[in-house]
This record gives sequence, C-alpha cells and structure tokens, in this order.
Amino acid sequence: MCDACVIQSVKERMLSRRDFFRAAAVGTAGIAAASMGAAPPALAEGHARVTDLTHELHEEFPTYFGQQQFFREQKFSFAEHKFNLFELRVNEHTGTHVDAPLHFSADGLSVAELPVEKLVVPLCVVDIRNKAAADPEAQVTPDDIKSWMAANGEIPENACIAMLSGWADHVGTDKFRNADADGKMHFPGFHVEAAKFLLEETQAAGIAVDTLSLDHGISPDFATHYAWLPGGRWGLEAAANLDQLPAKGATLVLGAPKHRGGTGGPARVFALV
Amino acid sequence: MCDACVIQSVKERMLSRRDFFRAAAVGTAGIAAASMGAAPPALAEGHARVTDLTHELHEEFPTYFGQQQFFREQKFSFAEHKFNLFELRVNEHTGTHVDAPLHFSADGLSVAELPVEKLVVPLCVVDIRNKAAADPEAQVTPDDIKSWMAANGEIPENACIAMLSGWADHVGTDKFRNADADGKMHFPGFHVEAAKFLLEETQAAGIAVDTLSLDHGISPDFATHYAWLPGGRWGLEAAANLDQLPAKGATLVLGAPKHRGGTGGPARVFALV
Repeated sequence: MCDACVIQSVKERMLSRRDFFRAAAVGTAGIAAASMGAAPPALAEGHARVTDLTHELHEEFPTYFGQQQFFREQKFSFAEHKFNLFELRVNEHTGTHVDAPLHFSADGLSVAELPVEKLVVPLCVVDIRNKAAADPEAQVTPDDIKSWMAANGEIPENACIAMLSGWADHVGTDKFRNADADGKMHFPGFHVEAAKFLLEETQAAGIAVDTLSLDHGISPDFATHYAWLPGGRWGLEAAANLDQLPAKGATLVLGAPKHRGGTGGPARVFALV
Repeated sequence: MCDACVIQSVKERMLSRRDFFRAAAVGTAGIAAASMGAAPPALAEGHARVTDLTHELHEEFPTYFGQQQFFREQKFSFAEHKFNLFELRVNEHTGTHVDAPLHFSADGLSVAELPVEKLVVPLCVVDIRNKAAADPEAQVTPDDIKSWMAANGEIPENACIAMLSGWADHVGTDKFRNADADGKMHFPGFHVEAAKFLLEETQAAGIAVDTLSLDHGISPDFATHYAWLPGGRWGLEAAANLDQLPAKGATLVLGAPKHRGGTGGPARVFALV
C-alpha cells in the first residue's frame, strides 16, 4: 500500500472507529469487560470492578523535593513522520510510584527483583481521614492497625496496608505538599512504630500512602522508610482512589516498573474487587 | 533517632530481614501469596498463579531502531546520601511496552486515556511457534485466529489476542532483531489482514506480540500498526513468558504507564490464571 493510500485508509478508520474507546466509560472504576465476554474468563468469577489507584503523571505533578521531576521531548510527530513518539526523563520517585528496598539500603532488592507473588496481594485500607482532616501531621499508628484487625481480622500474608488519609483529594493544589514558609511539609504518613509493628507481627509485603512519602511530611529523618524498606518490603506513594475501596477484600496489583537495579519508579496500580 | 543510630538500626534489620524477599521463589510464575492468607482475599477464589509477562529493562535491551533507548543516572547514592535514587531517560517504545492509539494517529487516545476496563482483559494466546521456527517472516493470519476460535470459542469482548511466536527466547541474542547485512529485520508479527479481521469481527481491545513490533520485522509500511491503533485499540510489544499460559482462560493485567499525552511506554504486565 502506498503512503497516500495508508493515510487515506487510516483516516477512514479513524472516522469510523476512533470513538470505540471514547464511548467506553473513562474513569477510575468500571465494570471489567472481562465479565461480559462470551467465554467468561477467570476474572468473571470473582472480580467485577477495576479501580485505578494511579494518578495521571505530568510535568506539574507535585514532588517531594518541590522541583519538576517529569519531562518529555517529542522525537517524532504524526504531522511530520506519520507517527508520534516521546522520550521521557523522570526521577524514579515521581507520581504514583514504588519504593523498592534498594531505595533506602545499600544492597536491598531492586524494583526488578521484587517477586511477582509480592505484587498481586490482598489490600487492607486503614482509614485515618477523620484525624488527618483535623491534623495534617496525623500518622497511622499501631493502634490504627489494631483497630483495623479488630474489625476485619488478621492481616493476610503478603498484604499491602494502605493509609487512606484523604490527601489524594489535594493532588491538584498546594495542600498536597502543604509546605509552610520554611519549606517544611505537613501531610500524613505511617508512624515508624506502625511499620515496626507490621514487620514484627505480620508478613505484610508493602505499605501504601496517598501522600508524597511513607513518612509524614514533617519527618526529619525518614524513620519509616529506614524501618520498613531495608526489611525487604516495598512502599507505594501517591496512591489514588483508595476511598473507593472496601477496608478489606480488594486485591492490589502493583504494576511496578522492571528496570534493572532500579530503586523504584512510576507504577500502574489497580485494585480488583 | 540520630543518624548513627538510624544506620545501625538499618544494618541490624538488613541482617535479620533482608532475605525475606530473596527466600521467596523469584521467577516468572509463582503461587500468589494471596491464596495463603488467614483471611482469603478475592484472588484466592479464582487466581492461584501470577505470570510476569515483562522482560527486565536495561541499557542493552534490544530496540526496533537498533540504538540504546534506556539510560539511567544515579542522583543519590546510599554511600554518600544514605539513600539511592536514579533519574531515567527512556524512549516510550522500549522494552516490554504499550502502543497507544496516539502512537500511530494524529489525535487518538493517549496511554493515559485508555479506560481501565480495557486494561484488565481476557487473554487469547495464538501459538504460531511451529511456522515461526521454520520462517522468521511468519505472521498471524485470519486463519490462525479462526483456528483458535474453532478450538476455544469466540473471542471475548475486550480480549487481548497475543501472538506466541517463541521469539521471547531470543531476547538476549542477536536473533531477537535478526537483522541482515542490509539492516532489515526478520521476525514474526501480525498480518494486517488479521488486524482487520479482529477489528471487523470482534470487540478485542488489544493485540500483543513477543517480538519488537506488531508488524513483522520485514514490513516496509507499519501496515498493522496503521490498521489497528487508530481504531482505538492498544498494542503490547516484547511480551515475555506467553509460553507459560493456556490458549484461553488467563486474564491479562496491562500495567500501562499513565503519563499525560503519552504514545505508550514501558509497562508491567501480568497474567492471572
């Protein structure tokens, strides 16, 4: 097919079919089409709903250090080359992203070395929205986890324990970093004692926060990072849409990047309920 | 806690716990720990096995254009700063990665706009290993898809149809690109007529290949890309471990990156069986 024919053919197809996806409900949750097929796949038996726990990443996405950490450069454009392609430059710890053990240890597991059975795991959502609304320095404490257990039972093996502080609602505003005049940030996180409790009392695989750091913003020493990550566990920062999930019963799928020797990276994260 | 105490504490934890993850089976497939928890999560009901369809990404990972497309620069090191962090630079179409409609259209959906219900989908594996072993120009044809349907039933709505050519076995060797003296590549792909058949006869959401391109390597015109992507569907290139999956019954989880306006990007891809 000649170039002109290709282009004409593409145009015709675009006119008739480009709304195939747009017509579908775009959102953070939807009925998995898997459940509607003629030959029901495995998901149809248990999982009807997919929730996207991933914020969209862009140049202005807020960062812990306060500087831009995501850049892109267009290398090919449809107008000129008949296809589009960007080169990306990104700090590993940007957007909704994973912290691997190697991030806070000399030789812990890299993000590529996390075993897959630690990436598809039960999700426990610990809701501290009330105290976080009253105090931006609020932290998940051992008592918060014990309260979750009293209501929902033991922490499952390899679980991810997620802090729902409500902070994801602030992602488009300055309150997400909530920096004061001295540049100190004020947002919730995991108390180091909660991390130690999980290490000592459970076989949890990861912890997740809806803020920019596993530690609360005012932390001077990354105590929770140092307690949790070198123990071979992972962290998930800047998770979205945790408020759409039950306290227990969801399965987290951590689509961590898999680059050799990585300390973490932007991830695609889903919850299946 | 003072810095010295932090470091000592970290060291102690690393000695006692850093093998937590290493002790687990690291591999492309494993029993999902989700099935072993005291409080069985949803996955325990249907999915026992997680297969990683993602190749590890590194500087020497083979590329379509033949040039290095993944770079990393260490910005912080544990020895000096007490934590590790890299900045990454990567062409969107590198490693195991997604092609969004925008890759081959003027204004198709970006990778961030793909609806989540099109990312957790039934997986149909079309095995063309025999003909690909005999001929590196082999393609998935409409007849291959019809044969799959005769054996396995209709293509489910929103399915991903994956080509299993056996080419993933060559990823560490020159045969993955299989370039001749003129630089022309020779590896399998989807015939444009197979893409058209899927567009016209099914509601498939994506196609996947275990090679560097949806089109076979020798293609002069990206005919399959132009036929498939502008129609609002996605592609997955350089998938790993498709040989570990059944022809039908697996659920693909496409952990596509979610950067605004992206034409695709490295993805973490799992299959749940």
